[in-house]
Amino acid sequence: MSDPAALTDLLGLVAYGELVAFDRMAADARLAPDLTRRALLSEMAAREITHYRRLADRLTELGMRPEEAMRPYVTALQSYHDSTQPKDWLEALTKAYVGDAVADDFLREIAGQLAEPDRQLVLDVLHDSRYDEFAGREIRAAIVADPRLANRLSMWARRLVGEALSHAGRVAAERAALTTLLVAPTGDPGAAQALFKRLTAAHTGRMAAVGLNN
Amino acid sequence: MSDPAALTDLLGLVAYGELVAFDRMAADARLAPDLTRRALLSEMAAREITHYRRLADRLTELGMRPEEAMRPYVTALQSYHDSTQPKDWLEALTKAYVGDAVADDFLREIAGQLAEPDRQLVLDVLHDSRYDEFAGREIRAAIVADPRLANRLSMWARRLVGEALSHAGRVAAERAALTTLLVAPTGDPGAAQALFKRLTAAHTGRMAAVGLNN
Repeated sequence: MSDPAALTDLLGLVAYGELVAFDRMAADARLAPDLTRRALLSEMAAREITHYRRLADRLTELGMRPEEAMRPYVTALQSYHDSTQPKDWLEALTKAYVGDAVADDFLREIAGQLAEPDRQLVLDVLHDSRYDEFAGREIRAAIVADPRLANRLSMWARRLVGEALSHAGRVAAERAALTTLLVAPTGDPGAAQALFKRLTAAHTGRMAAVGLNN
Repeated sequence: MSDPAALTDLLGLVAYGELVAFDRMAADARLAPDLTRRALLSEMAAREITHYRRLADRLTELGMRPEEAMRPYVTALQSYHDSTQPKDWLEALTKAYVGDAVADDFLREIAGQLAEPDRQLVLDVLHDSRYDEFAGREIRAAIVADPRLANRLSMWARRLVGEALSHAGRVAAERAALTTLLVAPTGDPGAAQALFKRLTAAHTGRMAAVGLNN
């Protein structure tokens, strides 16, 4: 990747994403039905902060203040989360299950276009798959116990994706350098569309895996 | 210390204290005036969870489910925090500065009466002094910039101590085994009173050090 602005744009976005993920998971831990689950979610939240630290250190190394690199994303990410506040434990898990996985897929695609050490850094800070597995298991078990939940949680998941796309679109429009990462390999604008298709297919598969419909 | 019930009572209290401290600091991070401070507080919150994990592992080793050991304290600690919700960044810092230090002084006293490895474990999970220093610095600077703040924050600190004592008294009354730790060394009920005096003197000194009056 040739554009250093695109790199700091990306690292700033991921760093702020970690900070917000920490905040959200810490708040969601309060919704846990018992202390064991609450502690588990709190521990997962804490891991996001370790990731944040690595990204912030890398930004500093690149001569960029982490605060400055993150600032462009504050409004979009905060308003995504404000507009999708889970109202119970299962909505919180569904949001994490659906949202984190899409974000991770996206980062995995982007990472392929970065040079080292940033490629490995971005791959390292992807969400712990243990959390996805835990969330998936809880959602599946809840739907088995009460099949009517499938409908409510599927609607919730669709709303999450809709809100995420709308906010992501706004960020992309504002951060031109970042957007070049998506079309960089071939310069072909169709590349972004192909990426979008892959992300959607993976998302659909994940929904089905826990008993949610798209 | 001869009473194993007192030990698991104590570890359960400290473990739950860590979980709640995590939750509170994570929520307070939202009140931070900028992203650098927000990240700093989030990182400090994450450290509490590392402590929680050590305590939970030790409880498991002692044959006690962490969840069970923590349960007796849920109501008291939660209602302390619910009744003392900071409404801005300086109130959050004052709460941490005042409350964490009193809790740490108390644990340091108690630790002296534990056998190893629990003595060291309790000493290890005391709050990071870096956080106290950070909070103290911020409070002092704010009061220098606006001396009228001293009055509001002093009143807030007194309220915190009052609420903490009232909730702690209720816990002590309910957990007889835990209370024996306070009078164990000599069997003298005056020992608890002497401890209380030492804690109060240290608290008064800390208040003065940042420009708050008792």
